[in-house]
Amino acid sequence: MSSLVQNSYGKSRVRLTKVARHPDRHDLKELCVDVHLEGDFSASYLQGDNRLVVPTDTMKNIVYVCAKPHALASIEGFGQALAEHFCRHYAQVAQVTIDIVEQPWQRVTLDGNEHAHAFIGTGPDRRTCSVVLTRQSLRLESGLDDLLLLKTTGSAFSGFHRDAFTTLADSDDRILATSLTARWHYTQPPADYDQCQCRVRRALIEAFAGHRSLGVQQTLHALGEAVLAACAEIEQIHLRMPNRHRLLVNLQSFGLDNNNEIFVATDEPYGLITGTLRREH
Amino acid sequence: MSSLVQNSYGKSRVRLTKVARHPDRHDLKELCVDVHLEGDFSASYLQGDNRLVVPTDTMKNIVYVCAKPHALASIEGFGQALAEHFCRHYAQVAQVTIDIVEQPWQRVTLDGNEHAHAFIGTGPDRRTCSVVLTRQSLRLESGLDDLLLLKTTGSAFSGFHRDAFTTLADSDDRILATSLTARWHYTQPPADYDQCQCRVRRALIEAFAGHRSLGVQQTLHALGEAVLAACAEIEQIHLRMPNRHRLLVNLQSFGLDNNNEIFVATDEPYGLITGTLRREH
Amino acid sequence: MSSLVQNSYGKSRVRLTKVARHPDRHDLKELCVDVHLEGDFSASYLQGDNRLVVPTDTMKNIVYVCAKPHALASIEGFGQALAEHFCRHYAQVAQVTIDIVEQPWQRVTLDGNEHAHAFIGTGPDRRTCSVVLTRQSLRLESGLDDLLLLKTTGSAFSGFHRDAFTTLADSDDRILATSLTARWHYTQPPADYDQCQCRVRRALIEAFAGHRSLGVQQTLHALGEAVLAACAEIEQIHLRMPNRHRLLVNLQSFGLDNNNEIFVATDEPYGLITGTLRREH
Amino acid sequence: MSSLVQNSYGKSRVRLTKVARHPDRHDLKELCVDVHLEGDFSASYLQGDNRLVVPTDTMKNIVYVCAKPHALASIEGFGQALAEHFCRHYAQVAQVTIDIVEQPWQRVTLDGNEHAHAFIGTGPDRRTCSVVLTRQSLRLESGLDDLLLLKTTGSAFSGFHRDAFTTLADSDDRILATSLTARWHYTQPPADYDQCQCRVRRALIEAFAGHRSLGVQQTLHALGEAVLAACAEIEQIHLRMPNRHRLLVNLQSFGLDNNNEIFVATDEPYGLITGTLRREH
Repeated sequence: MSSLVQNSYGKSRVRLTKVARHPDRHDLKELCVDVHLEGDFSASYLQGDNRLVVPTDTMKNIVYVCAKPHALASIEGFGQALAEHFCRHYAQVAQVTIDIVEQPWQRVTLDGNEHAHAFIGTGPDRRTCSVVLTRQSLRLESGLDDLLLLKTTGSAFSGFHRDAFTTLADSDDRILATSLTARWHYTQPPADYDQCQCRVRRALIEAFAGHRSLGVQQTLHALGEAVLAACAEIEQIHLRMPNRHRLLVNLQSFGLDNNNEIFVATDEPYGLITGTLRREH
Repeated sequence: MSSLVQNSYGKSRVRLTKVARHPDRHDLKELCVDVHLEGDFSASYLQGDNRLVVPTDTMKNIVYVCAKPHALASIEGFGQALAEHFCRHYAQVAQVTIDIVEQPWQRVTLDGNEHAHAFIGTGPDRRTCSVVLTRQSLRLESGLDDLLLLKTTGSAFSGFHRDAFTTLADSDDRILATSLTARWHYTQPPADYDQCQCRVRRALIEAFAGHRSLGVQQTLHALGEAVLAACAEIEQIHLRMPNRHRLLVNLQSFGLDNNNEIFVATDEPYGLITGTLRREH
Repeated sequence: MSSLVQNSYGKSRVRLTKVARHPDRHDLKELCVDVHLEGDFSASYLQGDNRLVVPTDTMKNIVYVCAKPHALASIEGFGQALAEHFCRHYAQVAQVTIDIVEQPWQRVTLDGNEHAHAFIGTGPDRRTCSVVLTRQSLRLESGLDDLLLLKTTGSAFSGFHRDAFTTLADSDDRILATSLTARWHYTQPPADYDQCQCRVRRALIEAFAGHRSLGVQQTLHALGEAVLAACAEIEQIHLRMPNRHRLLVNLQSFGLDNNNEIFVATDEPYGLITGTLRREH
Repeated sequence: MSSLVQNSYGKSRVRLTKVARHPDRHDLKELCVDVHLEGDFSASYLQGDNRLVVPTDTMKNIVYVCAKPHALASIEGFGQALAEHFCRHYAQVAQVTIDIVEQPWQRVTLDGNEHAHAFIGTGPDRRTCSVVLTRQSLRLESGLDDLLLLKTTGSAFSGFHRDAFTTLADSDDRILATSLTARWHYTQPPADYDQCQCRVRRALIEAFAGHRSLGVQQTLHALGEAVLAACAEIEQIHLRMPNRHRLLVNLQSFGLDNNNEIFVATDEPYGLITGTLRREH
C-alpha cells in the first residue's frame, strides 16, 4: 500500500565531558553529540527485522569510546572521527550525520594567573559543527549559535514599501539587537578550526559594531562579507538574524519626552532575516 | 567578492486570538503564525535599498487584517488565504511560507452541557500546518506535534546488530514511550481538514496501542500505514518518534526483585527514529 | 567569623515510573520527586565531616525502594510514606520535605473501551503535593499546577484607582485567561485524595466559567469559596492567577471595526494575583 | 464561610531598556522588573470593588516613568526608588516588593578600545535584587543567579553515612560542578552596589577554585565565609548549590581504562545543597 521513501535513526543528546589531566593543568571539553544514520535499514521498518540495526545505545557507547583516545582539539575533528568510525565499522550505513554543540567553559583567571583546574561557564553563544559523511563525500559545516549583539545607534530602517497595511514609521535611529546564528563551509579544511572560529566571531562582532545599518538585511550581508574577508578558508556562510525588537515607550501621557532613551524589549513577534553568501572566485 | 545565493525574511510568532460571538455560544481560536517571503529582495541586502521590502511589521498587520473576515474553520484554510494575500499584493514576492501552530482549547463541559464561552487548555499535542505558495505551485502540509504515547507492554527490541561496542541486552518486554510528530501531504484537499486531522490522530493512537512492536522503526511504519489506511486523502506522511526511554531500576542491591515494575524516565540521551511513507497507487 | 543559621540538602527531580501489571490491565504512575532534609548536618558544612550525611544518591535509591511495595494510590500517600521512612531511619533528621509532581497520563479509550496498557499524555495541568514531616508535626499540602482557563466574556475591570500614571481604559467585556495554580491544606486527611483533587479541579472550572468577574481578584475569591464549598475536608486554599492578557488589536488604520473579535496574546508583562482563603468555623 | 487571610497582586516581567546617550559613548541597561503590592485590597476580592486597586497596567507605566529620570547606576537603587514611589503615592499600600533581574551586556572591545555604542550579551550569570518596603521597614537583598562553576579536581566525597540503601562509593577525586545562586543582605548600604557585587562574584569564584572540597556542604560554607571576608558590608548570605553531576563512564566493557577522563553530564536527578551564613559580631 505504501513505500518507505525516507528513513533515518540515531541517538540525540549524548553528553560528553572529557578532562585531560596534564601535570601543570587540566583541560576541559564538554560536548553534546547527535548521531544519525541512513542506509540499509528498511527491513527493521517493514518486517521488524533488526539484524542490521546498530542500536542507538551502541551509538552512545561509540561516542565515549572514540572520545577516549581523541584529543578533542576541535569539535570538527572529533565529529569527523566519529563519522568515519560508523562508516568503517558498518557496511549497512550509507550516510552518517554527526551534530555537535560545545558547552563554553573558560579557565578561571585570578590576578592574571590562569587556574590549573577551575572553570567558569560562559555564553550564551556556543560553537557547533555538523559532519555529513557518505561513501563518496564529506560535508563539514562549522557554526556559532546565539551570539547576542546590540547597538544603541547606527541603525536605521526607512524607505521601505508602503501600502494600506503599513503602520510602521520610518526610523533613522533605532536600537538593533539580534541573537545571531551562523553556519559556514570551508573551501578546504583550515589548519586550525578553533582559530578560524575565533576569527569568524571577531569579524561578526566588529562588522556589527562598525556597520551603519540601513536594515537588518544589509547588516546581515555586511557581516557575511566581513567573515569571507577575514577567513580565506571559508567558501560559504549562512546567517540567521532574528530582529529582537526594542520598542520606544510612549511617555507623552505622563508629560515626559522620550528621546530614544526608554524602550521595552519584546520577544514576540520578531522579525527573522536570513541569507547565504558564497565566495566569488 | 561574494554572491548572495539565498535570502528570506519574515515575521515569526504573530499570536492571534479570534472570538466568534454567536448568539448562543462563542467560538475561540488561538494561533501562532510565522510568515516568510522570498523574492526580489537582494537590493536590500546589497545596497540597503528597502523599496521592495514589505516590513515584517506590515506582515504582522496583515495576519490580523486577514483574520477579521476569515472564519478560521481550519488553520490550513487560513494559511492558504494568508499566502495568497502576499502573492496577490506584492509582485516582488516569489514564494510565501506560512507556518501555523494552533493552541488547543476545549470547550468546558459541565454535567454533559457545553458551556457557551468558557474554555480549558489541553494538550500537549498541537495541530500545525505549513503552506508554501509560489507563482506556479502550492504545497500544503498538515501536522501534529508532541503527541505523548506510552505503552507498558507489547514492545520488544531484540535480534539487533551486536559487536564490540554493544552493551544493550535484548528485551522482549519493555515500555515504549514517545512524543510523536507527524507531517503529511494530501493528494487533493480534503473536504474537511479538521475531520481529517481527527482521523489521523485517532489512527496514530489506535495503531500505537494495538501494534506488537519489534522496534520503534517497525512501529513507526505501522503508524504510517494506519494513517494512509484511515485517510484516503493523504499522499505521504512523515513521522518522527523520539524514544523516551524508561530504564529498569536495579533493586538487587536492596534485596528486591524488579519484575518490570519500577523504572526511571530519562530525557537524554534519547533515540530518534524517523521515516516517510508514500502511498502506492 | 560567621554562624550557619540555616542549612538543608537533598535530591531533586528523582523520576519514577511504576507499572502495576494486573491480569486484565496495567496501571501507570509517573512521578517526579524532590527530597530535602534538615537536621544535624552542620559538621559537614563546618568541618567537612560527612558521618551524618545521608548521600543524595541514597535518597534517590530510597525513592525507588519505597515505591516497590507502595500502591501509589495517591501522591500524598506516597509522599507521607517517604517522609516517614527518612524520619524512622535517620535520627539526625529533624525535618523531611517531600515534593511530588505527577505526570498526567490518561488510559487510551477506543470506541468506549479502555485499553489495557496504552496511555496518552495529557495536561498541561498537573497534580502536586508537598509533605513536611518533623518529629512533632506533619504538614501536607495538595496542589494543582498550570490549569489553563479562558472565558471570552463575563469579565470586566473598571472603577479602579485613576491617577497621573493611569492609561488603562475601563472595560466591561474583556477576555479573561489564566494559568491557575492552587495549593490547599486539609482539616483532616480525606478518605480519597484523588477524588478530592477531582472535586477541587471541577469546582475551579465550574466557578471560573460561571462567575461574572469584576476583576481577577474577585474571581480568585469566588474560586476559593467554590473549592471550600465543594470539599468540606479542605481547611485553607491558596490560589495564584497570572492574568494572561489578550489585547484588542487596533484595526482602525485598516478601515476595519474590531468588535471584541481580534486579539493578540502577550506573555509579558503579566498581572499576577494571589490570595489565600481559610475556612471559618 | 471563609476569611481572606493573605492577598497580593502585581505586574511581573516588565522589561525595561534604558540608553544613556553621552557625547562620547552610550550606556545600556536592561532590566526585568516585578512589582507586587500588599495592603488594603480586600474589597476587590470580596465585593469586586476596585476603587483602591492600582491596575497592574499602571504599575508597568510607573516602571517606565521612574526609569526616565533615574541614572540606573544600580538595580538596588532603582528598586528602592520604585518601592518608594508606590508607598508615597498610594496610602492603601502596606508593603511593596520589587524584584529585578539584570540582563548582562558587555561593551564591545576591539583591539583594546571600548566601542561607543555596541554591546555583546554575556552570562549566563545575572545580577538580581529584591526590595521589600513597608511603612516601617526596608529590606534589601542583592543576588547573583546561575554562576556556572566547575573544577576537575580538588573535590572529594567520602566518609558519609552508609546503610542498606547506600550504593554510592567513596570518591577522593571527582568533578565538582554547580550553577550557584547567592542572595545577601547588607549591614548597611554599601557605597557602591556594583563594586560590592563584583567583590562577591570574585570571592565566590576564587574560593571555589581554591577550596579543597570534602563535600558540597563544606564548599558552600567556605564560599559563604569568603564572601563575608571580602565584603565587610554584608551581614548575611544565602547560597544554593545544585550538584550538577558528572558521572564516570564505564569503559571496561570495551577494554579501556577510564582514569577520571571520560564523564557524562546529567541534569536529573541532582543534589541540592543550601545554607545561610550570618556574620558574628
